[in-house]
Amino acid sequence: MFPMNQWYVAAFAWELKDKPLARTLLNRPVVLFRTASGEVAALEDRCCHRSVPLSCGTLDGDGIRCGYHGLLYAPSGKCIEIPGQLKIPGKACVAASKVVESNQIVWIWMGAEAGSEPTMPPPNYAVHDDPRYKYKGGVFHYNAPYQLIHDNLLDLSHLGYVHLKTIGGNPKLHMEAPTNVYSDGDTVRVVRWMKSSKAPATYSAAWPFKGLLDRWQEIDFHVSYLAIWTGAVDADTEALDDPQRGGFHMRGFHGITPETETTSHYFWSMASNSHPDQPDTSELVYQQTEQTFEEDRVIIDAQYRNMARFGSNPTIDIHVDAGANRARRVIERLCSQQ
Amino acid sequence: MFPMNQWYVAAFAWELKDKPLARTLLNRPVVLFRTASGEVAALEDRCCHRSVPLSCGTLDGDGIRCGYHGLLYAPSGKCIEIPGQLKIPGKACVAASKVVESNQIVWIWMGAEAGSEPTMPPPNYAVHDDPRYKYKGGVFHYNAPYQLIHDNLLDLSHLGYVHLKTIGGNPKLHMEAPTNVYSDGDTVRVVRWMKSSKAPATYSAAWPFKGLLDRWQEIDFHVSYLAIWTGAVDADTEALDDPQRGGFHMRGFHGITPETETTSHYFWSMASNSHPDQPDTSELVYQQTEQTFEEDRVIIDAQYRNMARFGSNPTIDIHVDAGANRARRVIERLCSQQ
Amino acid sequence: MFPMNQWYVAAFAWELKDKPLARTLLNRPVVLFRTASGEVAALEDRCCHRSVPLSCGTLDGDGIRCGYHGLLYAPSGKCIEIPGQLKIPGKACVAASKVVESNQIVWIWMGAEAGSEPTMPPPNYAVHDDPRYKYKGGVFHYNAPYQLIHDNLLDLSHLGYVHLKTIGGNPKLHMEAPTNVYSDGDTVRVVRWMKSSKAPATYSAAWPFKGLLDRWQEIDFHVSYLAIWTGAVDADTEALDDPQRGGFHMRGFHGITPETETTSHYFWSMASNSHPDQPDTSELVYQQTEQTFEEDRVIIDAQYRNMARFGSNPTIDIHVDAGANRARRVIERLCSQQ
Repeated sequence: MFPMNQWYVAAFAWELKDKPLARTLLNRPVVLFRTASGEVAALEDRCCHRSVPLSCGTLDGDGIRCGYHGLLYAPSGKCIEIPGQLKIPGKACVAASKVVESNQIVWIWMGAEAGSEPTMPPPNYAVHDDPRYKYKGGVFHYNAPYQLIHDNLLDLSHLGYVHLKTIGGNPKLHMEAPTNVYSDGDTVRVVRWMKSSKAPATYSAAWPFKGLLDRWQEIDFHVSYLAIWTGAVDADTEALDDPQRGGFHMRGFHGITPETETTSHYFWSMASNSHPDQPDTSELVYQQTEQTFEEDRVIIDAQYRNMARFGSNPTIDIHVDAGANRARRVIERLCSQQ
Repeated sequence: MFPMNQWYVAAFAWELKDKPLARTLLNRPVVLFRTASGEVAALEDRCCHRSVPLSCGTLDGDGIRCGYHGLLYAPSGKCIEIPGQLKIPGKACVAASKVVESNQIVWIWMGAEAGSEPTMPPPNYAVHDDPRYKYKGGVFHYNAPYQLIHDNLLDLSHLGYVHLKTIGGNPKLHMEAPTNVYSDGDTVRVVRWMKSSKAPATYSAAWPFKGLLDRWQEIDFHVSYLAIWTGAVDADTEALDDPQRGGFHMRGFHGITPETETTSHYFWSMASNSHPDQPDTSELVYQQTEQTFEEDRVIIDAQYRNMARFGSNPTIDIHVDAGANRARRVIERLCSQQ
Repeated sequence: MFPMNQWYVAAFAWELKDKPLARTLLNRPVVLFRTASGEVAALEDRCCHRSVPLSCGTLDGDGIRCGYHGLLYAPSGKCIEIPGQLKIPGKACVAASKVVESNQIVWIWMGAEAGSEPTMPPPNYAVHDDPRYKYKGGVFHYNAPYQLIHDNLLDLSHLGYVHLKTIGGNPKLHMEAPTNVYSDGDTVRVVRWMKSSKAPATYSAAWPFKGLLDRWQEIDFHVSYLAIWTGAVDADTEALDDPQRGGFHMRGFHGITPETETTSHYFWSMASNSHPDQPDTSELVYQQTEQTFEEDRVIIDAQYRNMARFGSNPTIDIHVDAGANRARRVIERLCSQQ
């Protein structure tokens, strides 16, 4: 079950060029496309004539044309041409979903019922337009339900065990980091500090640290995405809660959109700053992040396969689960209200 | 559901040489083989001893021998040898189906009950033995139910959108072609004329047309196969209903045999004539036809996957569906009567 | 359904080195590992915190550490460390199974209930430690239920049809071999003699026979494994029931452990003697045995797929089935008693 009345990530802007894109979102197969005039559109991915996916068709002006018998649909979902036939029946239409493009992200409002109007504005992810950073992103497919990805991102203690090669290692430091958890409406915030840490590989490669580091992890959970701000300064040089602090910054975007009850889309980007005395390191940070998130995918997919094998065997909670458990309560409340 | 009391294509004659052939037909796994004396035979593909497929065995004289413990079966389905055992129990037998080979096609009568006798003679497809044509064929496997292939073949307006590279294109001409639909008993006939057409790629390559063409499409639907006669003459040179008309002729055979409720076998051949002043073009026509039918397979498989995803969402009919809808009524009537 | 209160093969000893091994045994996913002190251990393959497979983790001293958040488990199944947390809840544990390593075989007692104590000692397979033989083994995975492998091994008449290239052929001789079947408690014994046999390929390659052979096959069925002693002497030179008889000996171990109701693990080894006047032939015998057992796997997997397709169609028994049928009665009795 998912909260339906939310803006979810449907795609990154750069995925929509001159071809339709098929993607199942919240159990509904959708075709996404960009019209000749540059707008994005999202329709039910099924011609109302013989059910062929519209994503097998072609873009034509501001519409999309079925590749079987040529029916043409407007971004509103209305069929506007049936070749060889003058009359277009009123039922010749498909469901359309509201989509908004901002900060290079295409947000979609599926709604509890097809065609329902959004009840809130789409999220604003300003990091993508912040000149201090360069970023790049990717899309992963998970064979696991979306909440397992929330759990993973809200509890960064796993870095000590899962990401030894890039941003993790130092398991003791990760597991013992002082952690604070805050809630506000449908959001959850987890803040962790790891002082006097050895530099993990990605940090050493990307920034000229002098020795030990003071690291921070600020995790902001929203229903359909997380914004995670991590980074470090040379140990004992700056306050970790100074909003103007310097050092090396990694700002991760994590859009998590259920595909089905048991599979998920993971839209991620990583933005980072480069030290003024060094060449740009953002491509290196992007590549190590891709490797890091792939490590998460492997373990979460294995986790879900195992949960499916073992059924409802009981589990225990430990100290690191506080943030993830609060996010689960948010999702549970939203699902029960719809 | 399928009409069971019909002759279906089980194989092309050239598929049956010195090895057994396993094929599931109308939900029943069958082993087809050619006996030492040259007859074709069709048995339930399962040894009655330990259920190993007989198709894993070997041909032995006029029979087939199981590859596990050597039980030998006659074309009648009777077990005629149990190695090392004198007495053969009466229950040592498997179901046999009536098969007939004609025009290089192996027809099978599965019957509503295993072993039932045919109530009509097998079809005659004389084109395969007509000296005016050369032909070649193939077997495709569909992950789609058989009636979606009927729909496709009874409505050739899709050529304008699906087969741009070979026999189609000109979508407007295809969608607006005057079309007549006739019924007679269990058959449906669709006749379409497209006058003053630009030559599609296959036609240009195969025949020295002078300019625009007058094209015809005559589709004869039978319960288990379609015979489709298409072709063209130079525009305004001959009547399209003259049985002796000249020009370029393509005669397609389309045997459609359900494998299961959701998958199908598609046995096809394409016969064509060559212009007397040119080298033989039948191999070229065959290869472009294979490419064309593969395009159909891709879209129909996508259509069925989508139907399965969307369940019983309603569809609309358009003007091109008349022939296909009549064929569906034939199938529906036959299924309801058995 | 399987007899649960039995020792089953979990692994060969050489499979457990410095990494955990994941294997589902009798429907239960298990992680097997060797501790720093050299003992073997078997735990439920699921961390009690977030259900990640422990087999994705790492060996640490005598325990195994989860690869997600570092929980450490002792061979007893008790969690002995939760990093960053002082208190370890009583529920922080996973099920452990009793394992015993003997004769290079790791035996496991799953029991009708997790954690139950063995009610009999593990089997002794002395051939692996017999200086007269050299052996090597392998592990195959079957997409077929375990009893189909029992059937195959208890009825060696199939050698005439299935293993033409190695140890079989001569179908008439195999099907007509005098066969005696004995039962004793939960064991079944089948003894077959084939006198004046032509040498099969493996026998000719491995031993300098002079002409025809007298062959024996002694099959000892136990609930979870079979020991099969086959071999031959030059025809009319020695009594086939002389325990001290010479000639060429092949001693096969066949541990059959259900993975699920419909899939199985097959742990096999082949031990053979070499003629004193020849170079060691055991590697040749091992390789031909691997090819032989692969032939069985192909036909048994095909048999099971066919059984699944045909459902409950009746089968007949023939003269070769006596041993297999008695073993089935043993299994049936044990299952009904648990």
